[in-house]
Amino acid sequence: MAVYTDVSFDDLEALLDGYDIGLPLSFKGIAEGVENSNFYLQTDRGSYFLTLYEKRVSEADLPFFLGLMAHLAARGIACPEPIRRRDGAQWTIVNGRPAALVTFLNGLSLRRPEAAHCAAAGEALARLHAAGADFALRRANALGPSGWQNLVEKTAAGANSIEGGLRELIAEAHRSVVPRWPSALPEGVIHADLFPDNVLFMGTTVSGLIDFYFACNDWLAYDLAVMLNAWCFESDGAYNITKSKSLIAGYQQQRRLTQAELEALPTLAAGAALRFLLTRLYDRINHDPNALVRPKDPRDFSKRLRFHLKAKSAAEYGL
Amino acid sequence: MAVYTDVSFDDLEALLDGYDIGLPLSFKGIAEGVENSNFYLQTDRGSYFLTLYEKRVSEADLPFFLGLMAHLAARGIACPEPIRRRDGAQWTIVNGRPAALVTFLNGLSLRRPEAAHCAAAGEALARLHAAGADFALRRANALGPSGWQNLVEKTAAGANSIEGGLRELIAEAHRSVVPRWPSALPEGVIHADLFPDNVLFMGTTVSGLIDFYFACNDWLAYDLAVMLNAWCFESDGAYNITKSKSLIAGYQQQRRLTQAELEALPTLAAGAALRFLLTRLYDRINHDPNALVRPKDPRDFSKRLRFHLKAKSAAEYGL
Repeated sequence: MAVYTDVSFDDLEALLDGYDIGLPLSFKGIAEGVENSNFYLQTDRGSYFLTLYEKRVSEADLPFFLGLMAHLAARGIACPEPIRRRDGAQWTIVNGRPAALVTFLNGLSLRRPEAAHCAAAGEALARLHAAGADFALRRANALGPSGWQNLVEKTAAGANSIEGGLRELIAEAHRSVVPRWPSALPEGVIHADLFPDNVLFMGTTVSGLIDFYFACNDWLAYDLAVMLNAWCFESDGAYNITKSKSLIAGYQQQRRLTQAELEALPTLAAGAALRFLLTRLYDRINHDPNALVRPKDPRDFSKRLRFHLKAKSAAEYGL
Repeated sequence: MAVYTDVSFDDLEALLDGYDIGLPLSFKGIAEGVENSNFYLQTDRGSYFLTLYEKRVSEADLPFFLGLMAHLAARGIACPEPIRRRDGAQWTIVNGRPAALVTFLNGLSLRRPEAAHCAAAGEALARLHAAGADFALRRANALGPSGWQNLVEKTAAGANSIEGGLRELIAEAHRSVVPRWPSALPEGVIHADLFPDNVLFMGTTVSGLIDFYFACNDWLAYDLAVMLNAWCFESDGAYNITKSKSLIAGYQQQRRLTQAELEALPTLAAGAALRFLLTRLYDRINHDPNALVRPKDPRDFSKRLRFHLKAKSAAEYGL
């Protein structure tokens, strides 16, 4: 949680010259997100969110990410809506970084969502999938099965220093999940990172979905599997079947899962756990002690991965 | 710039139970300040700033700091105004840290203030001094001459690894400034840290003075000397006499400096430079590489200190 690139008043004035959004009243760096530098901007016309994209977000992907947000917002999804510059561009350059201004969304993210929040978030995911169906651009999932091999190799030497037996767990999961990975399921634009951090609530109503910078095309049910990992485990590692049922039921209010999706669910959930375990482990092993961000603990996901590897059917998720 | 202590939605709900300020709409950690954890809070009734006081601010000092802000705000100074809890308390405890809610001020701090900003900031300082005159509490300046000896000793071994000759410069300044330090000047409540970071502007009008956590009782002209250090040097180390004249003229629009204050100005300015040099140097030498904050460069203040040590009279500051 940090601001990597500073934006001075002069930088802000130069930026705002390019937009028709009024005069600045307040501008604050936001301690949010581990990928980018984010700022809250209030003008006499409204509230905005400025993101400077740091090394992990490629400028080449911005037409997909920003285009998707504009597409979803136009279809009624509560997500940040990119503000176009006077010259029509969806992004610009600030201090050498690609930078975009989007609308600021009210709402609070929850550390410990309850079953009612899980139901609302599950339904919001299905609405996002429906709204994304006619989005024209495509982006491959760089952190799907084809991306795991590289991370497995790069984390192998350091894994057991983080947790005993982790290297073996990862190797087993990789061997087990990749061959079982589904080859044909309902596909579309997925968020791919819809953790509680990225869902804003007002009470039990979803007021915003944010942080689309892992969005891509993949199996829709994989997005649900990410959410089962992110929303349904308690801090002691136990799987909360009530939350799981609520989340899935919320999703199915908008779209019924197919039989093939139900059968694939344990595999998709294990794959999702493996993906977050691998990236967190990589970040932990390669952590620069001078960095302004503390890496997230990979061990949360080793527990979750073990759970999914043992799961025999969708019944274990309350289906 | 960081958030040291996290505040979850549950923490926020528990906090807001104690206040009569409405329902939360938005809550974001702010990457601002090196001492405390700060959050922007918007409710359906207004905008607020939540500060959790970390180790450098003692809870025993909160009656002074928060009482001063309330006192100044009541006298028309644009500063954060502490919000009282339903039970009348000015602060509470969040996650084990003392925490206060204050009003959020609009405005932007400037990286490169111009002469007109210096004039407005100087005038704001004098207004602050006048408004603080009848504040009942007192707090000694822990970073005045009596506090330097300890920092001189603790930084002696590491100083020259930061800049060649720094240890000798500090020793010389300490020997030279302490005996010349004035023993009787107009005294009162000073901000003691009124850097451009801590002054919010709308155009060239001061819209807020913030961060009162070094405020104390000391010579009023020392506060002006801090500002000469903080506002009037260019990034290449040159002293900008135009800004200096503007700042002092702005101050004197509200309060004329006495002859004794004018004569003491080079000594006060050298003392202010020494204070910031010593604390920045101490923080740099004792920097925890795992900390979320990058220490500020002490060398800015070695240049400034050399300038003040050579200054023979207030004329060198444009007087």
